[in-house]
Amino acid sequence: MQIGMIGLGKMGASLALNLLDHGHQVSAYDINVSAINMVSKSGATPTTSIEELVASLHPPRIIWTMVPAGDLTEKVIHTLLSLLEPGDIIIDGGNSHYRESIDRGKRLSEGGIHFMDVGTSGGVSGARKGACFMVGGDAATFRRLEPLFQDLAVIDGYYYAGESGSGHFLKMIHNGIEYGMMQAIAEGFEILDKSEFSFDYEQVARVWSNGSVIRSWLMELTTSAFSKDPKLADIRGVMQSSGEGLWTTLAALDVKAVTPIITLSLMMRYRSLEGDTFQGKVVAALRNEFGGHSVQKNE
Amino acid sequence: MQIGMIGLGKMGASLALNLLDHGHQVSAYDINVSAINMVSKSGATPTTSIEELVASLHPPRIIWTMVPAGDLTEKVIHTLLSLLEPGDIIIDGGNSHYRESIDRGKRLSEGGIHFMDVGTSGGVSGARKGACFMVGGDAATFRRLEPLFQDLAVIDGYYYAGESGSGHFLKMIHNGIEYGMMQAIAEGFEILDKSEFSFDYEQVARVWSNGSVIRSWLMELTTSAFSKDPKLADIRGVMQSSGEGLWTTLAALDVKAVTPIITLSLMMRYRSLEGDTFQGKVVAALRNEFGGHSVQKNE
Amino acid sequence: MQIGMIGLGKMGASLALNLLDHGHQVSAYDINVSAINMVSKSGATPTTSIEELVASLHPPRIIWTMVPAGDLTEKVIHTLLSLLEPGDIIIDGGNSHYRESIDRGKRLSEGGIHFMDVGTSGGVSGARKGACFMVGGDAATFRRLEPLFQDLAVIDGYYYAGESGSGHFLKMIHNGIEYGMMQAIAEGFEILDKSEFSFDYEQVARVWSNGSVIRSWLMELTTSAFSKDPKLADIRGVMQSSGEGLWTTLAALDVKAVTPIITLSLMMRYRSLEGDTFQGKVVAALRNEFGGHSVQKNE
Amino acid sequence: MQIGMIGLGKMGASLALNLLDHGHQVSAYDINVSAINMVSKSGATPTTSIEELVASLHPPRIIWTMVPAGDLTEKVIHTLLSLLEPGDIIIDGGNSHYRESIDRGKRLSEGGIHFMDVGTSGGVSGARKGACFMVGGDAATFRRLEPLFQDLAVIDGYYYAGESGSGHFLKMIHNGIEYGMMQAIAEGFEILDKSEFSFDYEQVARVWSNGSVIRSWLMELTTSAFSKDPKLADIRGVMQSSGEGLWTTLAALDVKAVTPIITLSLMMRYRSLEGDTFQGKVVAALRNEFGGHSVQKNE
Repeated sequence: MQIGMIGLGKMGASLALNLLDHGHQVSAYDINVSAINMVSKSGATPTTSIEELVASLHPPRIIWTMVPAGDLTEKVIHTLLSLLEPGDIIIDGGNSHYRESIDRGKRLSEGGIHFMDVGTSGGVSGARKGACFMVGGDAATFRRLEPLFQDLAVIDGYYYAGESGSGHFLKMIHNGIEYGMMQAIAEGFEILDKSEFSFDYEQVARVWSNGSVIRSWLMELTTSAFSKDPKLADIRGVMQSSGEGLWTTLAALDVKAVTPIITLSLMMRYRSLEGDTFQGKVVAALRNEFGGHSVQKNE
Repeated sequence: MQIGMIGLGKMGASLALNLLDHGHQVSAYDINVSAINMVSKSGATPTTSIEELVASLHPPRIIWTMVPAGDLTEKVIHTLLSLLEPGDIIIDGGNSHYRESIDRGKRLSEGGIHFMDVGTSGGVSGARKGACFMVGGDAATFRRLEPLFQDLAVIDGYYYAGESGSGHFLKMIHNGIEYGMMQAIAEGFEILDKSEFSFDYEQVARVWSNGSVIRSWLMELTTSAFSKDPKLADIRGVMQSSGEGLWTTLAALDVKAVTPIITLSLMMRYRSLEGDTFQGKVVAALRNEFGGHSVQKNE
Repeated sequence: MQIGMIGLGKMGASLALNLLDHGHQVSAYDINVSAINMVSKSGATPTTSIEELVASLHPPRIIWTMVPAGDLTEKVIHTLLSLLEPGDIIIDGGNSHYRESIDRGKRLSEGGIHFMDVGTSGGVSGARKGACFMVGGDAATFRRLEPLFQDLAVIDGYYYAGESGSGHFLKMIHNGIEYGMMQAIAEGFEILDKSEFSFDYEQVARVWSNGSVIRSWLMELTTSAFSKDPKLADIRGVMQSSGEGLWTTLAALDVKAVTPIITLSLMMRYRSLEGDTFQGKVVAALRNEFGGHSVQKNE
Repeated sequence: MQIGMIGLGKMGASLALNLLDHGHQVSAYDINVSAINMVSKSGATPTTSIEELVASLHPPRIIWTMVPAGDLTEKVIHTLLSLLEPGDIIIDGGNSHYRESIDRGKRLSEGGIHFMDVGTSGGVSGARKGACFMVGGDAATFRRLEPLFQDLAVIDGYYYAGESGSGHFLKMIHNGIEYGMMQAIAEGFEILDKSEFSFDYEQVARVWSNGSVIRSWLMELTTSAFSKDPKLADIRGVMQSSGEGLWTTLAALDVKAVTPIITLSLMMRYRSLEGDTFQGKVVAALRNEFGGHSVQKNE
């Protein structure tokens, strides 16, 4: 098939190469010219604008956007709207909020454009060699695209979840679970690190990756991380987050779902962004007030 | 009445002065001579050893120990055992673990000594002017001591909780609740501090201390703390803990009581003792592994 | 002064009576006629519509709305907008979301109406005898209203917090702290209830209300609750919530404030609304899958 | 090699059959005769007592105990002590607490017996076809036993962790992580279940098992569970626990490790054991006290 790929970052470029591997034609665009050059070396058709990318495709077109959620995705889709024709398909493979995808599904269908929200998991290596897709949008369009998902995904690695928004909703929840799993693993190793024993963390992660109940890709990645830096001495424990954990918590609160693990995983990430905290100051000050307990002074 | 007070730290000295205020005779001992001098200036009888303190009292004696829980309390009580006679009373006013108090109650009763575990709350100012006592031990001994508690406590400020250990158990739970309340207050001010508004925290704490649902002594102390340092800029948010919050959590786990607030208040204190964390390193490393997200390097 | 009170529920009626006690003139309106009759017996001027209420007041008017946040408050204010004149004042004493109050402040000021968001705490008894007010809005209007707050509040029981929205923001955070404090108290009593000891909970709550570090109005109310039902045997542990705890959590997440206590207090409330849970089913099923652990079947 | 297997429950019987598959000789004992018969049909030598089992083995003997941790394990090991000779090996493959294993390691080494604490993971299917072992004890004994672990484990599925206790410590932490992962998955599905979408949970779990970041054996088991009961309608959400999650929390508290995820996973399990809660009653009663909010009455 013929696909226009907009956004050639780590994920987009990997998907483009994956498509090329499976014999698809890829027109490629990114604001970063060197990213375009990289994929065109592997056979993609380079384009210098979204307009040119659209023009390079035969209708009905398939455009796959793989750009950061929010303003950038909105801008790309807005540009596409003036260029596409009824019957064309836009796939949003990024991490857009599912409510935006519900809205886009409605808005684009009014112009006859098929909008598919496709949550994509598996990391960069998955995008390159075999990913996992959670697909929302109309069923007929899904069936037209299914050969693509079959090629790009691992076996059993795609699921048509239903109406617009359901794909990104599933991806959001997936990431919420991911936060919880990562924090669970991290807490386990923190206890090991403070324990009376001396473990080889790479070996621990490896044995837990093989045959144990907690074997998982995340544990394999833990093995990999410790293989490069046995005590992670070089890196700081600052845990960034890119939104889906927060969104999962908000979605949970919205339906009164009780999610202490996902929510606290998020909060521990926020905590890691701070050195000193105001809440700590308040508690320290209170202990001093009632019990005369000494406080540590800033210098 | 005639009381021997062992341990003249902030709490013990305040109780001694409080007793003297109410016309009681106090024999006082501490390893710190200047502490003895301080209370003897207010009328206490100074003694230079536990032996001398015991000798200064007419049987049946009342000995009040106000020393740090654990080894020191054990040492003092062990020394007393060889000096006291059947009918004498030992009051442990410190924060001993209730299981130790149950054991001491049994052990001392075998020698005819009455052991009372008396959880004491109200901070230093309360010990001086009107405290709160949670009393465990035999009922007859409680009745003998009741005039003391009446003098030392605020109105309705003492409770005979029952058998040995029940006084310290109540005090432990009290402190667990205290951890939760303090953390709740601290979280509230943390949100204020990060908000788009500019509040005068002293005034906020004051208005919340007057007429609101959350009015409380802790909120009054919050007012006091902010009155001294409007943004708590001088102090570090390191939240020490002296054991009762941990014990409360352990007691909760022991009976499968669900206590997320008390337990997380404790954990946030532990978190405040650390700069960087190992769990943070693990999560940061994992994000790098699957998504290529950058990590912050130590220098 | 002359005040129009709209909304004569538990809080509104109590404030109306409190105003009358202090010699103010109150025009009163509610959709519930019996509520109007009740306050008019104490001297309020009954009115049969918002129009009549507005007409009963001399400009510049002071209208105090005390109706449920959200649609009802919006409806009342919308009605008032067509009736009021520049210079009139609307006080929203309910629990409106602070963002709505920021918007209302802007919107109403365009028509020359002064909008004041006044977070009100202290429960029904406080509204009647001495409440706590957190006031947002313009400073000049606050000064005009200050005599009212002085009369209605306890000493030091009002605070001018600044611009529109700041009053309701403070009230929201106050309620978040309240959630945490209540859950801390509740957890403490839960451990007592599962412990090996037999406590008289009313007496425990009373002693903790007198002289202890955790003395607070909430602990006094705990005493009161246990005085009516020593083991709370008659009531079910269903913990409703009316929004401010959720809003506080959302506000915290918005600024990356770490609030495990407030957030988990909310989640435990949500948990209490459910009998069985889906998450429980998943964990039970998983234990069965890997370990053959038996599951409990529904009948 | 020749191994005496004591305890032929789900795990012990599976390991015995696994050993037989690999050409080892197994003497088998259990208090349940039918369990002995089952494994003897596959080639194990049945024995009718621990004495007979020990007698059936040539020194230096290898005894593998796979019985419930605590009293039963202690009883078996106590019996063995009177029967074994210096140079014999006891493998405790159960979930004993690591402190007990440290003590046993010391105690048994005094009689010349080699004690190995071998945490075993992988569930029943793993024990049968390829398990995961975390091994503590002396290094020389580990090397003697290594061929066994090589046969019984999957590739890279065993790790020699060091001194006595380290194997069971690792297994404990493994289970703590397992609690957190399971709760993370369960929370994710709970949000799905309360959402506006209609998902096929089996398909969701399957797609998340293939190519996603959260792919894991637990997710595969989730797929399996939903394949049998699409909404888990038949089972109750009662989450039992067998101790290691609690021990992990206690170990974390012991070293001041901050483990909100593991600890709250445990607490949510405890919560699932209760219908109504005392903490819920207290909060409901308090809301009634200050705000007049109605409570639900028991009938």
